[in-house]
Amino acid sequence: MKKHKVIFQPSGRRGEVEEGKTLLEAAQSLGVDIEALCGNKKVCGKCKVRIEEGYFEKDNMESGMAHVSPLTEDEKKHIKPEDGPGIRLACSAGVYGAVKVFVPERSRAGKQIVRKTAKELTIALDPAVRKYNIDLVAPKLHDMTTGDYERVLKFLENGYGLKNLTFDYVALKDLQNILRKGEWKATATVWMDREIIKIEPGFVEVCYGLAVDIGTTTCVGYLSDLSTGRVVNTESMMNPQVPYGEDVMSRITYAMSNPNGLETMQNAIITGLNEIIERVVSEIRKDGPDPGYAIDDLTIVFNTAMHHIFLGLNPEYIGRSPFIPAVQNSLNIKARDLGLKINPSAYIHVLPIEAGFVGADNVGVLIAEEPYNQDEMVLIIDIGTNGELLLGNRNRVCSASCATGPAFEGAQIKFGMRAAPGAIETVRIDPVTKEPLYKVIGKADWHTHLEKVNAKGLCGSGIIEVVAEMFKAGIIDKSGRFVMDLNTTRVRKDADGRPEYVLAWAEETSIGTDITITQGDVRALQLAKGALYTGAKLMMKKLGITKLDRVILAGAFGSHINKEASLTLGMFPDCELDKIYAVGNAAGDGARMALLNKGKRIEASEKARWVEFIEIATDPTFEKEFMQAMHIPHMKDSFPNLKVLLEKAGSSVSIKG
Amino acid sequence: MKKHKVIFQPSGRRGEVEEGKTLLEAAQSLGVDIEALCGNKKVCGKCKVRIEEGYFEKDNMESGMAHVSPLTEDEKKHIKPEDGPGIRLACSAGVYGAVKVFVPERSRAGKQIVRKTAKELTIALDPAVRKYNIDLVAPKLHDMTTGDYERVLKFLENGYGLKNLTFDYVALKDLQNILRKGEWKATATVWMDREIIKIEPGFVEVCYGLAVDIGTTTCVGYLSDLSTGRVVNTESMMNPQVPYGEDVMSRITYAMSNPNGLETMQNAIITGLNEIIERVVSEIRKDGPDPGYAIDDLTIVFNTAMHHIFLGLNPEYIGRSPFIPAVQNSLNIKARDLGLKINPSAYIHVLPIEAGFVGADNVGVLIAEEPYNQDEMVLIIDIGTNGELLLGNRNRVCSASCATGPAFEGAQIKFGMRAAPGAIETVRIDPVTKEPLYKVIGKADWHTHLEKVNAKGLCGSGIIEVVAEMFKAGIIDKSGRFVMDLNTTRVRKDADGRPEYVLAWAEETSIGTDITITQGDVRALQLAKGALYTGAKLMMKKLGITKLDRVILAGAFGSHINKEASLTLGMFPDCELDKIYAVGNAAGDGARMALLNKGKRIEASEKARWVEFIEIATDPTFEKEFMQAMHIPHMKDSFPNLKVLLEKAGSSVSIKG
Repeated sequence: MKKHKVIFQPSGRRGEVEEGKTLLEAAQSLGVDIEALCGNKKVCGKCKVRIEEGYFEKDNMESGMAHVSPLTEDEKKHIKPEDGPGIRLACSAGVYGAVKVFVPERSRAGKQIVRKTAKELTIALDPAVRKYNIDLVAPKLHDMTTGDYERVLKFLENGYGLKNLTFDYVALKDLQNILRKGEWKATATVWMDREIIKIEPGFVEVCYGLAVDIGTTTCVGYLSDLSTGRVVNTESMMNPQVPYGEDVMSRITYAMSNPNGLETMQNAIITGLNEIIERVVSEIRKDGPDPGYAIDDLTIVFNTAMHHIFLGLNPEYIGRSPFIPAVQNSLNIKARDLGLKINPSAYIHVLPIEAGFVGADNVGVLIAEEPYNQDEMVLIIDIGTNGELLLGNRNRVCSASCATGPAFEGAQIKFGMRAAPGAIETVRIDPVTKEPLYKVIGKADWHTHLEKVNAKGLCGSGIIEVVAEMFKAGIIDKSGRFVMDLNTTRVRKDADGRPEYVLAWAEETSIGTDITITQGDVRALQLAKGALYTGAKLMMKKLGITKLDRVILAGAFGSHINKEASLTLGMFPDCELDKIYAVGNAAGDGARMALLNKGKRIEASEKARWVEFIEIATDPTFEKEFMQAMHIPHMKDSFPNLKVLLEKAGSSVSIKG
Repeated sequence: MKKHKVIFQPSGRRGEVEEGKTLLEAAQSLGVDIEALCGNKKVCGKCKVRIEEGYFEKDNMESGMAHVSPLTEDEKKHIKPEDGPGIRLACSAGVYGAVKVFVPERSRAGKQIVRKTAKELTIALDPAVRKYNIDLVAPKLHDMTTGDYERVLKFLENGYGLKNLTFDYVALKDLQNILRKGEWKATATVWMDREIIKIEPGFVEVCYGLAVDIGTTTCVGYLSDLSTGRVVNTESMMNPQVPYGEDVMSRITYAMSNPNGLETMQNAIITGLNEIIERVVSEIRKDGPDPGYAIDDLTIVFNTAMHHIFLGLNPEYIGRSPFIPAVQNSLNIKARDLGLKINPSAYIHVLPIEAGFVGADNVGVLIAEEPYNQDEMVLIIDIGTNGELLLGNRNRVCSASCATGPAFEGAQIKFGMRAAPGAIETVRIDPVTKEPLYKVIGKADWHTHLEKVNAKGLCGSGIIEVVAEMFKAGIIDKSGRFVMDLNTTRVRKDADGRPEYVLAWAEETSIGTDITITQGDVRALQLAKGALYTGAKLMMKKLGITKLDRVILAGAFGSHINKEASLTLGMFPDCELDKIYAVGNAAGDGARMALLNKGKRIEASEKARWVEFIEIATDPTFEKEFMQAMHIPHMKDSFPNLKVLLEKAGSSVSIKG
């Protein structure tokens, strides 16, 4: 049977698919989530995908033979001009050659769930945006020398002490009709006690803000009620810029080497954020022209490259010496100037960046975790495609950035996937039998072998756990190499002769193939953790310390990350286990804090300047340190706390204590 | 021969035209200026007009018979989709029924010239917008913690003492490339010492601003060099809102009674102003994406209704009791938010309005003429479609508004026209022979009868003069009625038996017909001048004064207005002739002053609130006063200064001294 290569974006899942199979079947066999509500009846139109490459193979150019079957009548009913070019229904397009397929966010089945839970923050409520109720007397003829605008300003001054307010022009255009619609009762939304950014009829109390964290790989938005501080909804998605490059440097290259490359990526992320906005407000009152009109404030964090691309600033100069960003200060930009579909008069507050690639996201971590208020020496690791580190205490805090790659987020891992239902998130391996137990997102219990649980792949936390467990069980050694003489069928060689560990047999999965951990997966994780370890070590050297009092693990999946597994892998130097904390998405927490308390914005600007940025890659010992840090947990460093832990767990692996 | 009625907009010129004549021939016979560069060879495509009504007559609806001849192949070559519907070449479309035709500004021949001359203003230069040269050191690797933005801010603070500057987002997007293009030499344009609104490569000195006066009938823009205060160019045009209503009230009605009526008129004036912008910058350096990119500041004045429509604010409530404007305060609005094609980051400074229909244009007059700094009791008349009055001195100043109609601007006058070449602007009539002498715009000398001077009609100042002269020569009496038993062929009856005075015989004109002053023209002028007189009289009553120390005549054609003729007509109560001043476009002068000196903006806001607005139309004596003021110069009031003047001039007319 003839087979063709199929690549799905943005997940990067790829494989050989039999000729004639539909793209939906191909996706299912590769563990790619595509919505197919109608169960392949070709009526729901939900499974739209975009053919990105391979419509025609070079060899077949002249004959015009397509790599996918021709458009069917069923498809024509569902595909609209606004869908853009290359759109097909995955259930209907058959594979007849190599293709690259992009699965739009709307067509992806199963919501990413890990970032759903936003932790409670304890912070004084003092938001930048507030609503003030206005109760005017209807004007009479003798009032004629006073305009609507002036009457509102006078009420806000007399009633609330707000002076010298300005009025956003777009908001002003609604004023007359709204005052009359509400019979002279209205609500003014005021930004920073300076500018009126909305007028609504009647008395409105609840005020919404959105805290946004744009990661290289994933984006999340927390909809917050600014009067209570509560997160009322959270939505996330893959960063739609992934097709233009999986890491920061490749996106900078894309911007530099493609005409309109920057504009293309800026549009992609703005469109993506607008989709998050549309979804996140789905359950609250609609009262404006745009879906997100109820949102009156927005704070946003991202790394420096994502920051530049989001703002349409040329990222070229941050990617090459002397690494100069366009702007480091915080910015307040009108939503309408960025094309964001919230209240068009609202401001987008862009948190400041530190330096180099240490961006506003790290400033978010900084103001959420406040190392500058601690006596203990704390290492904060923000795990993502670009890892950022903070080390210090109230006397001094340093920051650094290291390129970990997207392995921690499940990308570039053979069976890696988003933290969505079907993803293996927790793993234990019996050190004697080498048999695993695992938990799948969406199921409460440990999986009993051979029970059909519809596993599809591993999310980031699952990958970290399985590699740590493989090390503890002796399946891989300190250097990450597979131990091949074990008495188990789970360690085997693949068709190309490369070793792999079978975590789930095909029968347990929904994708019809064994889910395995390959030598390549282990290597990807070693590179990622080695980069973090090296960063931490070089920072400790810079600060002249040899011991960490505390380690804080932050990141997209931070609240799920297994701190024992992280310590076992050697993601950071040894530390007492109960001094290791997984705090979840601290960058997002910082964005939320800046949303809820405007003093935090000032704090962010001050501390972003105060933190000392360290360039790690230029350290002369970098390469040697990195090579040693690739080992599990490390080639030379001792891990007294980890040694005790492994002994307690009954692991036969011996490490330097 | 069959004839059809043709109406040309925005001039309002109308007449019967023989069937089969082209629209260009019709326009020429009615004195409507249409550009026809190719001399009717149908090749230049300059004479585009829009058929507004009468493509089909109701009776002919079914037969589909058009009122104009079918579109020719010649026309199809010139008419583009972006021209919009109904566009024809005037040279090619033949008249076969009643039609209403709009002549777009671009197709109008002959520039309006009267407002060209902007008088010298003596005012200290302290503009809201300034350019600062920046000379940075190229960044090196150790500078990496400083972004481009921060380096510019630091230079502006150290070099010029500018602190806490913000950076407009759109301007910021250019920063990186411009700094590098100019090899770290650049120029920052700063608004109000608060915000950077432009970055240009290299050292730029000259800075442009535009002062705009939007009248009900005409619009003008003065391009000023903010470093010298000089006006470098002036452009004007008919207000493109004229087709939607010739006066303020009819435009308010249009906005209320048509879906998207407000939006349509706002778009028309924004498009029109963009055309003024494009024309006014034609001779200065282009250096940006939009034609007007070199303009970094814009001040604008208009009456309250034009103000609301320009800003997209509902004008409904200013048109009915209790006459509440949306906003009276001055506003600063980003050019991009209004769609004006100057520097998109620049602010449009909208001067404050006073009250009712007394708008920002009167505030312009106020700060240009400064009655609040005078000891003498001064009456300031701003003549336009809506007349505005100021009366007072340093102790107290009152303002009022009166609807004069567009007669003073040459509209609704049978042979009225814009102040363009061919317009009669000055007239003398021999009191004995009743023979006139006149001057045509574009010719220096008095016209000798029967010399072909290509007269086309009368502009506003010509109309005022001819009616005053007709009164002095005894052709019309105090009540405005024609005296029919004079020994002259110039006073005659038209086809409908209505009296008229022949100012120019057909042989002297370029339109092939006699140019006459009709009884209707005289009535229109009486209504207009009566409204002004009544306003002034009621204000004097309010202030308890009986005598004017000084009269200032302002307006579109103010610098050309004949003060003797104005006094003769009784546009205002009696005053010494050498205490009457014609100051030209004082509203525009005020806009220019606010452009050149930011202190004038504060003065405008303070004085706009300080001036007392008087509602004239509600005065119980209004109707009686108005009826008496319709007489020339007045039914009852005495005019001692005018009496002397008329006696000196040898007029046989006797008035109350």
